[in-house]
Amino acid sequence: MGFYSRLNQAWSQSDSMLCVGLDPDVTRFPETLQGGVQEIETFCKQIIDATGDLVCAFKPQIAYFAAHGAEKQLENICAYIRLHYPNVVLILDAKRGDIGDTAKLYAREAFVRYDADAVTVNPYLGTDSLEPFLATPDKGTIVLCRTSNAGSSEFQSLIVDAEPLYLRVARTAAETWRTIGECALVVGATYPAELAVVRAIVGEMPILVPGIGAQGGDIAAVVNAGRGTNSRGLIINSSRAILYADSSKSFADSARKVAIETRDEINRANSVY
Amino acid sequence: MGFYSRLNQAWSQSDSMLCVGLDPDVTRFPETLQGGVQEIETFCKQIIDATGDLVCAFKPQIAYFAAHGAEKQLENICAYIRLHYPNVVLILDAKRGDIGDTAKLYAREAFVRYDADAVTVNPYLGTDSLEPFLATPDKGTIVLCRTSNAGSSEFQSLIVDAEPLYLRVARTAAETWRTIGECALVVGATYPAELAVVRAIVGEMPILVPGIGAQGGDIAAVVNAGRGTNSRGLIINSSRAILYADSSKSFADSARKVAIETRDEINRANSVY
Repeated sequence: MGFYSRLNQAWSQSDSMLCVGLDPDVTRFPETLQGGVQEIETFCKQIIDATGDLVCAFKPQIAYFAAHGAEKQLENICAYIRLHYPNVVLILDAKRGDIGDTAKLYAREAFVRYDADAVTVNPYLGTDSLEPFLATPDKGTIVLCRTSNAGSSEFQSLIVDAEPLYLRVARTAAETWRTIGECALVVGATYPAELAVVRAIVGEMPILVPGIGAQGGDIAAVVNAGRGTNSRGLIINSSRAILYADSSKSFADSARKVAIETRDEINRANSVY
Repeated sequence: MGFYSRLNQAWSQSDSMLCVGLDPDVTRFPETLQGGVQEIETFCKQIIDATGDLVCAFKPQIAYFAAHGAEKQLENICAYIRLHYPNVVLILDAKRGDIGDTAKLYAREAFVRYDADAVTVNPYLGTDSLEPFLATPDKGTIVLCRTSNAGSSEFQSLIVDAEPLYLRVARTAAETWRTIGECALVVGATYPAELAVVRAIVGEMPILVPGIGAQGGDIAAVVNAGRGTNSRGLIINSSRAILYADSSKSFADSARKVAIETRDEINRANSVY
């Protein structure tokens, strides 16, 4: 089953467009997990078990593992999601981007080593740098379009041929990348007006939306601006607001509580037409 | 000693602007190293020993390690360069790019875990995404400007405010990033005319130039277009043409031979005014 099919199934079965981002920050672990780097796997598995029935996707951010040499723990976490939550989509957030021969190896890293359903990538090097990802059967390639950070306008909003660069990226996704493979885009929750314009360009293409929760994106605005015609189409990511809801030993219970609230807020916004 | 000082020292001591890219492709290893992934470290160390006196820099490409779970071998290779070739600059080619909190972790990966002097990064997310790299004292941040691949024009050459996007990147490097930290740029050898324009914008800023050797960039054109006023300023990378000069057990000798030829061709071009 391909990325789009798995995502459609995940949205339906979970009745959720929430994605929990696995950004294990060892400096914010609860008091019961003070082994630091050695506890990354334990921390993530407890978050996964506390939220696995509430989400359409999990999105581990590889930098949190790579900074500490914890790739083996990331492998174990990915395998754990595959085994225990087989209907939840697994997105590796890596934002890779390199020329073709090297991109093939990054595709192998994401799709073989970590067995992810999809990986985030950077468009700056152009279509030929994305082809090794897009051409991998049944896998998803989620291209950065308009990122959630405050400084994302600096290059992404420069005007090219009478429209901002990020819309050129969206148009290229709709017209070219979609014909090569199962493409999706990243648009930050902090820019709902831009999200609406991207949605109009890309039709039913899935959009990964980081930036709610700790980054302050408004859920109702995101849902209204970004959902597809079938009231799906979004993978709305929250990381820190869920992972660090509580620094006590009950962190997993608190994570579940915030995840439920977030899922419900998404669904409430989605039920108002 | 900072990145710029180390680079100046390396250019002088080696009398070379050649950088050997460590892209260990297990499918192209010599017949004497048929252990595949287990031999990555051995292969790279033999290349390093065969070329260490001929280069200003080594540039391991992390994808070749990450695809195979060989990060520990990459750590060992970086430590080996530090120990045995302390005056050679170590560049981690990772092309990272993410929002601030995550970028801090990628900076840690490059500068602490692998102890690199510099790392390659992607500008698409804007200045705030580069700050964690630029703000690290004594370390180099090498930003993609105009990449060597055939499709790099697709976004990098789009016209914004009457100039191509890659020149806006170069201008931002010269005007902003340079004031935050020790910045450099990537410009592909396959585009020497563009390299000349970038050099005119960035003054004496170092430029990493991939794309000679297997990718076909012309060395004389690169040197003439890209050198600074002191006849230095370039880190000219060759990977495959040196690493896979010969697939027999004498691969390291052949690598040395090609590295000498390449260094000499660079120096000959640089001596003609």
